[in-house]
Amino acid sequence: MNANYRVAAFGEVMMRLEVPGHALLVQANSLALSFSGTGVNVTAALTNYGHEGYLVTTLPNNPLGDAAASALKKLGLSLKLSNRAGQYIGSYFLENGFGVRPSRVTYTNRQESSFNTASTDHYDFAAIAEQIDVISFCGITLAMNDLVRSQMFLLAEEMRKRGKLIVFDCNYRPSLWGKDGYEQAKGHYEKMLQLADIVMMNEKDALLLLGFTTEQVDRKEQLLDVIPQVAKRYQIPIIAGTQRTIYGDNKHELAAYMYKEAQFSFYSTEPFAVYDRIGAGDAFTSGIIHGELTKMSQQETIAFAAAAGMLAHTTAGDTPLASIAEVEQALVLTVSDVQR
Amino acid sequence: MNANYRVAAFGEVMMRLEVPGHALLVQANSLALSFSGTGVNVTAALTNYGHEGYLVTTLPNNPLGDAAASALKKLGLSLKLSNRAGQYIGSYFLENGFGVRPSRVTYTNRQESSFNTASTDHYDFAAIAEQIDVISFCGITLAMNDLVRSQMFLLAEEMRKRGKLIVFDCNYRPSLWGKDGYEQAKGHYEKMLQLADIVMMNEKDALLLLGFTTEQVDRKEQLLDVIPQVAKRYQIPIIAGTQRTIYGDNKHELAAYMYKEAQFSFYSTEPFAVYDRIGAGDAFTSGIIHGELTKMSQQETIAFAAAAGMLAHTTAGDTPLASIAEVEQALVLTVSDVQR
Amino acid sequence: MNANYRVAAFGEVMMRLEVPGHALLVQANSLALSFSGTGVNVTAALTNYGHEGYLVTTLPNNPLGDAAASALKKLGLSLKLSNRAGQYIGSYFLENGFGVRPSRVTYTNRQESSFNTASTDHYDFAAIAEQIDVISFCGITLAMNDLVRSQMFLLAEEMRKRGKLIVFDCNYRPSLWGKDGYEQAKGHYEKMLQLADIVMMNEKDALLLLGFTTEQVDRKEQLLDVIPQVAKRYQIPIIAGTQRTIYGDNKHELAAYMYKEAQFSFYSTEPFAVYDRIGAGDAFTSGIIHGELTKMSQQETIAFAAAAGMLAHTTAGDTPLASIAEVEQALVLTVSDVQR
Amino acid sequence: MNANYRVAAFGEVMMRLEVPGHALLVQANSLALSFSGTGVNVTAALTNYGHEGYLVTTLPNNPLGDAAASALKKLGLSLKLSNRAGQYIGSYFLENGFGVRPSRVTYTNRQESSFNTASTDHYDFAAIAEQIDVISFCGITLAMNDLVRSQMFLLAEEMRKRGKLIVFDCNYRPSLWGKDGYEQAKGHYEKMLQLADIVMMNEKDALLLLGFTTEQVDRKEQLLDVIPQVAKRYQIPIIAGTQRTIYGDNKHELAAYMYKEAQFSFYSTEPFAVYDRIGAGDAFTSGIIHGELTKMSQQETIAFAAAAGMLAHTTAGDTPLASIAEVEQALVLTVSDVQR
Amino acid sequence: MNANYRVAAFGEVMMRLEVPGHALLVQANSLALSFSGTGVNVTAALTNYGHEGYLVTTLPNNPLGDAAASALKKLGLSLKLSNRAGQYIGSYFLENGFGVRPSRVTYTNRQESSFNTASTDHYDFAAIAEQIDVISFCGITLAMNDLVRSQMFLLAEEMRKRGKLIVFDCNYRPSLWGKDGYEQAKGHYEKMLQLADIVMMNEKDALLLLGFTTEQVDRKEQLLDVIPQVAKRYQIPIIAGTQRTIYGDNKHELAAYMYKEAQFSFYSTEPFAVYDRIGAGDAFTSGIIHGELTKMSQQETIAFAAAAGMLAHTTAGDTPLASIAEVEQALVLTVSDVQR
Amino acid sequence: MNANYRVAAFGEVMMRLEVPGHALLVQANSLALSFSGTGVNVTAALTNYGHEGYLVTTLPNNPLGDAAASALKKLGLSLKLSNRAGQYIGSYFLENGFGVRPSRVTYTNRQESSFNTASTDHYDFAAIAEQIDVISFCGITLAMNDLVRSQMFLLAEEMRKRGKLIVFDCNYRPSLWGKDGYEQAKGHYEKMLQLADIVMMNEKDALLLLGFTTEQVDRKEQLLDVIPQVAKRYQIPIIAGTQRTIYGDNKHELAAYMYKEAQFSFYSTEPFAVYDRIGAGDAFTSGIIHGELTKMSQQETIAFAAAAGMLAHTTAGDTPLASIAEVEQALVLTVSDVQR
Repeated sequence: MNANYRVAAFGEVMMRLEVPGHALLVQANSLALSFSGTGVNVTAALTNYGHEGYLVTTLPNNPLGDAAASALKKLGLSLKLSNRAGQYIGSYFLENGFGVRPSRVTYTNRQESSFNTASTDHYDFAAIAEQIDVISFCGITLAMNDLVRSQMFLLAEEMRKRGKLIVFDCNYRPSLWGKDGYEQAKGHYEKMLQLADIVMMNEKDALLLLGFTTEQVDRKEQLLDVIPQVAKRYQIPIIAGTQRTIYGDNKHELAAYMYKEAQFSFYSTEPFAVYDRIGAGDAFTSGIIHGELTKMSQQETIAFAAAAGMLAHTTAGDTPLASIAEVEQALVLTVSDVQR
Repeated sequence: MNANYRVAAFGEVMMRLEVPGHALLVQANSLALSFSGTGVNVTAALTNYGHEGYLVTTLPNNPLGDAAASALKKLGLSLKLSNRAGQYIGSYFLENGFGVRPSRVTYTNRQESSFNTASTDHYDFAAIAEQIDVISFCGITLAMNDLVRSQMFLLAEEMRKRGKLIVFDCNYRPSLWGKDGYEQAKGHYEKMLQLADIVMMNEKDALLLLGFTTEQVDRKEQLLDVIPQVAKRYQIPIIAGTQRTIYGDNKHELAAYMYKEAQFSFYSTEPFAVYDRIGAGDAFTSGIIHGELTKMSQQETIAFAAAAGMLAHTTAGDTPLASIAEVEQALVLTVSDVQR
Repeated sequence: MNANYRVAAFGEVMMRLEVPGHALLVQANSLALSFSGTGVNVTAALTNYGHEGYLVTTLPNNPLGDAAASALKKLGLSLKLSNRAGQYIGSYFLENGFGVRPSRVTYTNRQESSFNTASTDHYDFAAIAEQIDVISFCGITLAMNDLVRSQMFLLAEEMRKRGKLIVFDCNYRPSLWGKDGYEQAKGHYEKMLQLADIVMMNEKDALLLLGFTTEQVDRKEQLLDVIPQVAKRYQIPIIAGTQRTIYGDNKHELAAYMYKEAQFSFYSTEPFAVYDRIGAGDAFTSGIIHGELTKMSQQETIAFAAAAGMLAHTTAGDTPLASIAEVEQALVLTVSDVQR
Repeated sequence: MNANYRVAAFGEVMMRLEVPGHALLVQANSLALSFSGTGVNVTAALTNYGHEGYLVTTLPNNPLGDAAASALKKLGLSLKLSNRAGQYIGSYFLENGFGVRPSRVTYTNRQESSFNTASTDHYDFAAIAEQIDVISFCGITLAMNDLVRSQMFLLAEEMRKRGKLIVFDCNYRPSLWGKDGYEQAKGHYEKMLQLADIVMMNEKDALLLLGFTTEQVDRKEQLLDVIPQVAKRYQIPIIAGTQRTIYGDNKHELAAYMYKEAQFSFYSTEPFAVYDRIGAGDAFTSGIIHGELTKMSQQETIAFAAAAGMLAHTTAGDTPLASIAEVEQALVLTVSDVQR
Repeated sequence: MNANYRVAAFGEVMMRLEVPGHALLVQANSLALSFSGTGVNVTAALTNYGHEGYLVTTLPNNPLGDAAASALKKLGLSLKLSNRAGQYIGSYFLENGFGVRPSRVTYTNRQESSFNTASTDHYDFAAIAEQIDVISFCGITLAMNDLVRSQMFLLAEEMRKRGKLIVFDCNYRPSLWGKDGYEQAKGHYEKMLQLADIVMMNEKDALLLLGFTTEQVDRKEQLLDVIPQVAKRYQIPIIAGTQRTIYGDNKHELAAYMYKEAQFSFYSTEPFAVYDRIGAGDAFTSGIIHGELTKMSQQETIAFAAAAGMLAHTTAGDTPLASIAEVEQALVLTVSDVQR
Repeated sequence: MNANYRVAAFGEVMMRLEVPGHALLVQANSLALSFSGTGVNVTAALTNYGHEGYLVTTLPNNPLGDAAASALKKLGLSLKLSNRAGQYIGSYFLENGFGVRPSRVTYTNRQESSFNTASTDHYDFAAIAEQIDVISFCGITLAMNDLVRSQMFLLAEEMRKRGKLIVFDCNYRPSLWGKDGYEQAKGHYEKMLQLADIVMMNEKDALLLLGFTTEQVDRKEQLLDVIPQVAKRYQIPIIAGTQRTIYGDNKHELAAYMYKEAQFSFYSTEPFAVYDRIGAGDAFTSGIIHGELTKMSQQETIAFAAAAGMLAHTTAGDTPLASIAEVEQALVLTVSDVQR
C-alpha cells in the first residue's frame, strides 16, 4: 500500500456503547462496545485510501485507554502523536430506532474526559505540525471548553505557519452549545474559518450560525447564494457539504456540493438504504480530503466523497471501512447479485 | 411520576420463547425469553403513562414463577393482587417470518397452567374491586375454560356494583375455540359485552361472532353499519377498534375508529414499517383507556391510541414501552434524523 | 461405520431449556435449546459406537416436533419407528448451580405431551419388535401414567416372545411418584424386572423400592448382599449400576459394579471434574449394553461403561457424544496436554 | 411421511462461515457455522417433500467431518453412499451486504478437500446407481478437476445404463474457470448435457458457454430462440431455469421457464424481499425434480419450483427448509398477518 | 409474601459494565449491562427475605435512568422515595480475573453523577424517615463529597429522632479517599459511627482508619481486642463483620463475627468456590439486618448472615438473589446432586 | 511508551476458529475468530513490553487477509515488512477440553497458504535485516516445506552477517513431520541451531530429535546432562526452556531453566489454574528475549519469563497480553482480592 500523505486529526476518542439490534436500553442485557469520534473516522477512512493516519488526542491511562488504543491501532491509526493521561473517556449510548421510532443517543459527561482536561503542556504542537501534512478539526471539539479550544487554535496556527493543509468540519451540534448556542459559538467558529483551507458546512451553518442572510427559500438556492459569501468573507479556498433528504422507509439521499475557485460542482446520490447513520459525514469529509490530496478534478472529488459518504451508511459502526476500489465501485454501481 | 388511576387486568401471563432473528425452530440453538400477555401489555402501557398497573393473575410457585414475577415488576406492575399457586405457566414459541414467509406461533398446553387451574377461592374479588379503578379483560381468557370464565364474570360484577370502569377486548382467536367456535363463543361474549363500558372490536366480530348482518361490502361501510347496532343491543358506552391493511414490504396501516355517544371518530396512520407485530393491539387498547381516563376529546383519544398502536409495532417484544411524550411525538412525526 | 445391532428405546423426548452459564432463570434473557431424554441418550450413545439407533416415541405434529426430529436425526437416530401426533412435548428448565449452590430442574407438565397421550393404536409393537435387536426402557416412563405403562409392557412382551434383549434402567425419581411413591411404584417395577435381561439399579432401589433388607451399613456391603437376592427373585441375568460420591469442588467419583452369572465385577474411577451431570447415567447404561452386544468380558464391560459414564460428565448437553476410541482413551488416560 | 423416490446428489459439502448480521470480516469476533453445497441443498429440499435424500460425497475423517455429517443427518440426508477420507473440507466465508454494498464470498482452497482428492476406488458407482432413482449433478463439480469430473461421468453413465433420471444444473461460475473459462468449460459441459434428462440453465449459458447465437436482444426472446436449439442439439428432454431481476430495495423477482416436449411454460413471481440469497437456485431445481417425479403438469411444476425458489430466499442459510404445504401456501399467498 | 419491615438505603446506583467471561477490555466487543450499588444490594436482599425495600437516591432523567429504574424494580425495590434529576450515572467496568490474574475494576467519573450532584432540596428527609423502619448507609457514599455527606447525616439524624434503626457499613475503599485517606476519612466516619445502631466493620477499620491500637498479631485476636473498644467509644449496640481468607484455587473462606451486648458470636464457613465476588459483603449485611429485625438469636443471626454472604459469591452479578429457604439450605448443606 | 528494540518474527499467521465454551464441533453453531501464530505471539508480547514488533510474513490478498492485518495491528504489530499475496491463510479449529476430556486442534491444509507458497522474490531479506534488531524463528515454520525453510535460512544468514540476535524455538510438532519425523527434521534443526543465539528447547528435543543420550532417568537430571552438550556442539550462547507438569484439576506447573555461559538458572512456579493453554510457550520465549535485551540478570530473566508464561495461561486467546507491570506483579503474587 502506497501511503501518500500524513493526515492527522485533533479530537476526542469516544466510547460507543450500542444496544444490540433495535431494542431499548431498558431491554438491554448487553451493549456492543466500540471506539470512534469524528477525528478517528476521518483519519481511519484516509488510512483505507493509503495515507498515514495519526491522532492528536489524549487517552486515559487505564484499561479503557488500552482498549481504545487497541481499537484505533486496529483501524491502522498511529498514536505516536497522542498522550495517555487522566482517567476518563467520553462515551455515548446508542439505541437504534426502527421506522417511525427515531434512534436515540445518550451522552455521559465528557467535560472530565482525558482529552477535555489534558494540559496544553502535554502536546508539542510545533513538533506535531512538523510531522504531518494535513490536520482535521471539527466543531464538536470547538464546543467543549476553553482549554481544548485554545489547543485547537495553537495547533492550527502551527500548521498555518508551515503552509500545511487545515480542514475544518463545522459540525454544529445544538445540544452541545445550549441556549443561545449560535451566539456563543459564532466567534469561535469565525476564528477557525479564517484558519481553514477546506471547510465542511452547508447553508444552515451560514444562515443560523454565521448570520448570513438570503432571500431564497429553496435549500439549494440558499446554498448558491450564501456559500460564495462565506468563502469570500473568511477567505476559504474550498467549501463542501451535503444536503440530506430522509425518506420514510429508512432511505436517505445526499445532494453534495463543492465550492472551489468560485465554482460549484454537484453530485446527488440515488435514495439508498441506511444501516448505520453515524459517521457518514466523516466519510464524506475524508473523500473531499482524498480528492484534493490526490489532485482529482473538482467533479471527481465531489462524486468520490458522496459515494464514500453513501457507503458509510451501509456499514456497521461509526468508522468508514471502504477501500478506494469499493468507493469507485459504488459510483458506477447498479444493484447486483452476490459476489462469488 | 403522577399516577392517576389504578388499572388492573385479569388474565394469564405467558412465557414467550422467540427464535432469534428470522431463523426457524429447527435451526435454533437458543431462544429469547420474555413474559407478556394481553393483560400485561395493557397495564404496562398504562404504567408508562403514569397510572398504577396491577395484575390479577396466578403465577406458578417455582423458579418460572419467580422469573415471571421479576419481569412483570420490571415493567412497573404490582403483583399485590396476584397469587402464586400451581406449577405451570402458559407459553408460546415465536418464529419470525420474513417477506412472503409468515411468522408462526406455536402454543404449549395452557389448560393446566397456574392461571387456568387456580381455584376461585384464591381470589378475593370484592377486595380487589375495592382497590382498583379500572379492570381490563380480553377474549383470550374467555376462551380458556369454565373456571376462569366464571372468575372473569365474578370480578366484572364486583366492578359493576361499584360503578368502576370495565374494559373488554373481544380478541377472538379461532384456534382457541376450535370447530363451531363462533357458536360456542357467542353466549360468553354476549355476557361480557353487557357488562363492559369500553369494548374493543371491529366489524368482523359483529358479523362473524355476534351474528349481525349488513348489506355493505366495504369494510368501513360495514363498520358504520353494524357497530351502532352492537352498541345499542348490548348497551355499550364506547366501542373502538382498528382495521389493519398489510402491505407486501413489511408495512402495515391502521384505520382506527371510536364510537361513543352515537358518534364515530376516525384516525388513519400512514403505512409504517413493522418490527414486532405482537402486542400492538394491546397498545391501542391502552391508548383508548388513557384517553378516557384523562378526559381527552374523542378525536384526541383515537389519535393517541392509534399512534400508541403504531409505535408498539416498532419495538421488540410484546409489551408497549412508549411514554406519553413518545406517543405524542409519533403523532406529529415526520421522518427525522438521529437524535443526538 | 459398521453397525452391528439395531437398538431401540421406548420413551419420551424432552425439550431442555437451559439458562446459559451459571445464571438463574430470573436473570435470563435467553435459553439454550436442545432435545434429549433417557431413551435418546442411550440409543445415541450406541449409535456413536456403530450400532443403529431407533426411537419408539411420539412427537408433536408442529414446529416443535420438527425441531425435535431434526435434533434426533442429527444424533444419528432413526425415527422410522416413531409417530407424529398431538401438540405438546415434555420440557424442563435447567439452572446450573455453582459450588454450594445446587443446580435446579423445573419441569413443565408432561402428562399432556404427545408421548404420554398417544393412543396405543399408533404403535405396531409386533412389527417394531421384528425390526430391532434390543429395546431399552426406563423407570421414568414407568412413572408417567397407565397408558404408557401398558404400552411399555406390550412392547416388552413382544420382544420377549422373540427372545430379544430387554434393558431396563430403574431410574426411580421420587418427584414423579409423589407421596407413598415406593408403594405405588413397586408393582410396576416388579413387572418390568421380570421381563428384563439387563437391569440398571443399585442397592437403594433394592432396599427402598423393592423392600429388600440387609444388616449391612456400608453401601458396598449392602450391594453385595442384596443384588444377588434381586437377581434371584426376578430372574435377572445381568444387573449393573453405580454408586456416586460427590466432592465439594465439583468432582464426582463413580464406583461401578456388574453382577452376572452369580459374579460381581467392579470398576472405580478417580475423582473427576463435572461439566454437565445430566445424562451421565445413560452413558453408563449404553456402555453395559455395548459390552454385552460385542461380547466383551464382564470386567471389560464394566470398565468401558464406567469410562463412558465419566466422559459424559465432561460434555455439554444431556446426550453422550464420545466414540469408542474416546472411551478407550479415557480408560488409560493420564492427564495430558492439548492434542495438536 | 411417505418417501416416494430415492434422490442422490454427487458433489462437495462446503463449510459456510458467515459473519453475523451485516458486519465485515474485519469487524467479526465470531462466525456462524453451517454446512451446505449444491447437492446438499437439492437433496435436502427433496427430503422435505417426502423423498429419501442421499449424498454421494467424501467427508474428512476428523472432527470437521463429524460436524458436517451431523449437520447433513439433521437435514434428513443419508450418508450411506458417502465415504470418509482425507482431512480437509471446502469452505467459504460470507459477508452479508446491505443496500448498495454487495455481499462477498471468500473461498479457501478447495482443490485439496476430501471430495476433490478422493480416489475413484472409494466409490462403487454401479452399486450406488442401483440404490437410487435420481442423481443430481452441478457445474460447480465440473469446474473442480479431472478427477472429480471423471467420477461424475462414471456415475452418470451407470445411471444412464439403468435408465434412471439424471439432473444437471449448469451453474457456471466464472471465478472457478478462470481466464478463457468458457472455452475450457465447453467440452465438459457438452458431455454432461448429452447425458442429462433434466438440465437447469438459461439463455446466458447457451450464448456465452455453448456458443449458440441469436438475433434477439430481449432476454426472454433470447430464451425462446436458443433453448429449443439447445434441447435439440444435446437431446435434452427437459430444460428449466430462471431469469432474475434485482431491485434496489433488496427485492428480487424470478421469471421461471420450463421447456419440455417442445413446449414452454412460464411462471413469474411478484418482487419479493430477500433474506438469504444463497441456495435459492437449488430450491428451484428441487422443485422441478419434485414436479417431474410426482407427475405434476408442466405448468404446476414450474409454478411449484418458482415458489420453492422464492421461499428459499426468505430463510436463513443455504439449504431450503420449506415443506410442500409451505410452498403451496406461497403460491396462493397474499400478504398475511401472524399465524397464531 | 409477608413484608415485615420497610428497609431503605441511601446511596448511589451504579451501572456495571462487565466484560463477558474472562476476557480483557482490549478483547471485548460487548459488555454485560446491569445496575447495582451497595444500597441496592442490601435492600434487594432484604426484599427477597420478605421485607419492603426502598432506595433513597437520584437517577438521571434520561434513558439510562429509565434502564436503571427498570432494573431496580425488577429486584422488587420501590423508587417512590427516589428522584430523577441530572444526566449521569456512576459506572464501572469489570474484567474478571482467572487464577493468578486478579479481577480489575475501572471506574468512570462519579462526582458528576445525578446522585452526587443532587440538590438537598430534592429530598424531604423527614418525610422519608417517617415512611421507613430501617436505613442503611455505607462508607462509599461517605467518600463522595460534602454534599452527599451532609445529606447522609441529615437523613441519619431524622431517623435517630424517631428512634429508627440506622445501619452503617464502613466499607473503606482506599482508592476513593486518595493519599492520606485515613486522616481525611476519620472524622466523617466517627460522625456516622456515633449515629449508627448496627455497624459493619472489622479490625482493620479500627486499627487503620480509627486509630485504635493493639498488641495482638493474629487477626482474630486483634478483633477480640479492638472491637469492644470501638463499641464503647462510639456507643454502638451491634458490630459485625467478616475476615476473609483467599485460597489459590478460586476458593474463599469467611470467618464472621457479631458483637452485641458485650458478647461475641462467631461462624466460619468451609472454603467455598467463588463465582462473582462483588456484592457478597452486602449480602452479609442484609443477613445481620434480617436476623435483628426478626429477632433471631445472636448465633442464628451470624450464621444466617455468613451463609447469605457465602451464597452471594455463587451467583452472577452484584445483587444477592437467594431466598430465606436457600440461605437456610446453605447452612445445613452437604454437597449434593442435581435437584430434579 | 519507550520502544527499545525492533523485534521481528518470520512465520505464518494462523486463523483460530474456536468452539465457544466447552462444546464440541458437532454441537457448534458459531465459532470465535482470532488470528495468531508463534511469531505473532512472541512479537506481540514484546510490543507489550515496549519494543517495536514486526512480522515478516505473507497474508492473502482478500478479506481474510484484511481481517488478519487488522487483528495484528490491534496487537501493536507493524506489517511494513510483510507482503500480501496468494489467497489462503492457514487455520485451525479448537475444541476446548474439560477435565479428563482433552482439547482437540484440527488443522486445515496449510501447504497452500499465502505464507507457505510465497515466492522468495517477495522478500528483500537484506533490507529486512537492516531494519530490525532481533529475529525470532520457530520449528513449526521449519516443518512446512523447502521453500519457507530456504527463506528462513536466508533471513537468518542476513541477520548473522550483521551480528544481530537470532532466536529459535525448537517447537517440534510430531504431527507436522509425520512418520520418521525425527530423522527428517534433524538436519534442518541442526542448521538452525548453528545460526541461533538463543534457543528454546528442553531435554526431549535433545534426546529424541538431536540424538543425544543420557544415563539419567529423572527429567531434570537429563536436562543438566544434555543441554550443556547441545550448547557446546552447536555453539549456542543461550538455551532456555520449561518442563511442564500437568495436574488432574486443570492446573499446570512450569519448571523453567536457562543455560548461559556454562551456568544454569532455574525458576519453578507454583501449580496454577489454566484458562487457555495455547501460546503460553511463546510468552515464555518473549520473556527470555526481553530479559536479554534489557540486560536483566540470568536469574531475573528466567523468573520473568516463567511468570510471563504462567500469566499467558490465564488469558483468553493465543496471544500474551500482559504488561511488564503485570508480569512483575505475578512474580510477587499472593492470591488477592478484586482490585477496585
